[in-house]
Amino acid sequence: MKKMRPEGRDVHGNEMRHNPVSGQWVIYSLSRRKRPSDMAGARSERESRPDYDEQCPFCPGHERELPGIILECRGGESPWRLRVVENKFPALTPGGDLQRKRHGLYLCMQGYGHHEVVIESPVHNRQIPLMTQDEVEMIIEAYHRRYLDLMKLERNMLIVIFRNYGSRAGASLAHPHSQIISTGLVPEHVREQEYRAQRYFDDWGHCLYCDLLEEELAAGERIINENPSFVSFIPYAAERPFEIWVMPRSHKAHFGDVSEREKSDLAACMRILLRMLRQTLNDPDYNYVIHSSAKYRSGEPQAHWFLKISPRLTTRAGFEIGSGMSINTSLPEEDAAFLRAGGQGVAGGEKNATQI
Amino acid sequence: MKKMRPEGRDVHGNEMRHNPVSGQWVIYSLSRRKRPSDMAGARSERESRPDYDEQCPFCPGHERELPGIILECRGGESPWRLRVVENKFPALTPGGDLQRKRHGLYLCMQGYGHHEVVIESPVHNRQIPLMTQDEVEMIIEAYHRRYLDLMKLERNMLIVIFRNYGSRAGASLAHPHSQIISTGLVPEHVREQEYRAQRYFDDWGHCLYCDLLEEELAAGERIINENPSFVSFIPYAAERPFEIWVMPRSHKAHFGDVSEREKSDLAACMRILLRMLRQTLNDPDYNYVIHSSAKYRSGEPQAHWFLKISPRLTTRAGFEIGSGMSINTSLPEEDAAFLRAGGQGVAGGEKNATQI
Repeated sequence: MKKMRPEGRDVHGNEMRHNPVSGQWVIYSLSRRKRPSDMAGARSERESRPDYDEQCPFCPGHERELPGIILECRGGESPWRLRVVENKFPALTPGGDLQRKRHGLYLCMQGYGHHEVVIESPVHNRQIPLMTQDEVEMIIEAYHRRYLDLMKLERNMLIVIFRNYGSRAGASLAHPHSQIISTGLVPEHVREQEYRAQRYFDDWGHCLYCDLLEEELAAGERIINENPSFVSFIPYAAERPFEIWVMPRSHKAHFGDVSEREKSDLAACMRILLRMLRQTLNDPDYNYVIHSSAKYRSGEPQAHWFLKISPRLTTRAGFEIGSGMSINTSLPEEDAAFLRAGGQGVAGGEKNATQI
Repeated sequence: MKKMRPEGRDVHGNEMRHNPVSGQWVIYSLSRRKRPSDMAGARSERESRPDYDEQCPFCPGHERELPGIILECRGGESPWRLRVVENKFPALTPGGDLQRKRHGLYLCMQGYGHHEVVIESPVHNRQIPLMTQDEVEMIIEAYHRRYLDLMKLERNMLIVIFRNYGSRAGASLAHPHSQIISTGLVPEHVREQEYRAQRYFDDWGHCLYCDLLEEELAAGERIINENPSFVSFIPYAAERPFEIWVMPRSHKAHFGDVSEREKSDLAACMRILLRMLRQTLNDPDYNYVIHSSAKYRSGEPQAHWFLKISPRLTTRAGFEIGSGMSINTSLPEEDAAFLRAGGQGVAGGEKNATQI
């Protein structure tokens, strides 16, 4: 076997490679193989999870194991209420540069980026549906501050804020947490959606997302929740059962531009939605992601940030891999009615994670 | 709640809707919610699975429950050796038309297409690694015949042949089977890859896939298996650990154009690869998909069919959903060396499905 080529790798061994067939960059992070997991049998054990776990690296008392505390919110009885820390097993690291290198037909580069963890509470079993409005606002505030600070760094081109809940959603630890990754390039997938929105704007002179929000409000049947700043709905062409988009009413390309009022209203909305999922769908595993514009696009009229919740009730299989299309076994209108009714008395009868 | 609009739905209730943000069509198939499953606790039970299961709809004796037998291979001791049947819970159905309809801002259409199941053996526990060369050739032959017949139908634009193995790969039944879906449109995802290959051809005057194959053969370190017609390798920018591409040496856009020799060599190759995965990675769940060109593109010089095997050892989480990028915890060169060595004595030590 030939020796491995180290040119594209940073000091931590992270590397990125470009797939010429799909146009996507792939991140190679061998250190993530070593990350700990306490998620075995996680769903059945959720109910009985304690408020403190000696083994959990995010519970108080494990400070020495955390590689670096970036942000800490204090107050209350515990020495801290929320922490943002460096990920000990980062997918990307801030060392190295953005220089692409040729590797025969291919391109590679160092795995530049930031990878942070938002430890949302010192309490091991305090998931968002159990939190107060203040606590959830603190999480959104932490997202916002880190978004602004990371975007200020010249090489960061995109900030992805996300939460993986449960092992089917890719979480390896049970303690309440979200993650933030910054990348030094704009992925093909994001450019593609940018391009579609740009063309729509060029054709119609409107923001696609504003028009879509107006359409959903006029139809009404897929709306789940409204407050002064946000409308939550299951989109007309949802890819998965119970996929929820939380759309700001105010047109802003950039999550960094949210107002104080919007942060508070987003927290209120997330509490309601995640409680709803927990109660009506038997606490399903889910991901949520904040979709925001790439660097240099924050002022553009066609981009509109939003948050997407993707419950992991079904599995993408071979047809989805081959075609890119999704097969959804649930109709958006029915899913929305089911959630609005608190999981009661809707055509199709009782649903739960195992029936979909 | 307003009444559901039936205009976009066919007689079976299948419907497709277009997502203006991603450009993808989504298939709605409520009947698939009712499909049976015998996959609970499947991985641990695999070893002890019997050769006949009274409850299994694909085992002999359940002919009356099958909606329609399309193809049957006979010979040997059993009354049949392989069957292609209509899927009882189809994602798409051949009724209806391809007419797109406006739905406010959105587009919808009937869920046109074919959805077939290839029951690969009458024996409940006879997975591909246990089959003879003849038996696997019969499967490839069935794929090929159905591909040709389905492509002859005017409205079919794309044929996707795939196999879901294990519950993490989306399989709901344990009996050895693959599936074939034809669609009446070309998905955005397929057009996107077509477009990239077209641009590469326009720039370089070569097929991207032929160049990629040449590059992989020259590098050598990611090759897993070769025979006169096929080269199997883990691509330079593999999205997942142990993702394998089986690339025909001969440039053909269209799986329908494979020769007798190629079918036999593909069968030989699949037996080796799936046996390798089973032995070295503790029988992982996987999908495989045949990627072939859409209708009207079969003669084009830039398209090149191939088969992709995607072991399901990791979970795509929030970052992947938001960015479209993958985080791979495994290096292609190491994965290939590991498979070539039969899972022995390679840097990084022993790997199995739970360690990645």
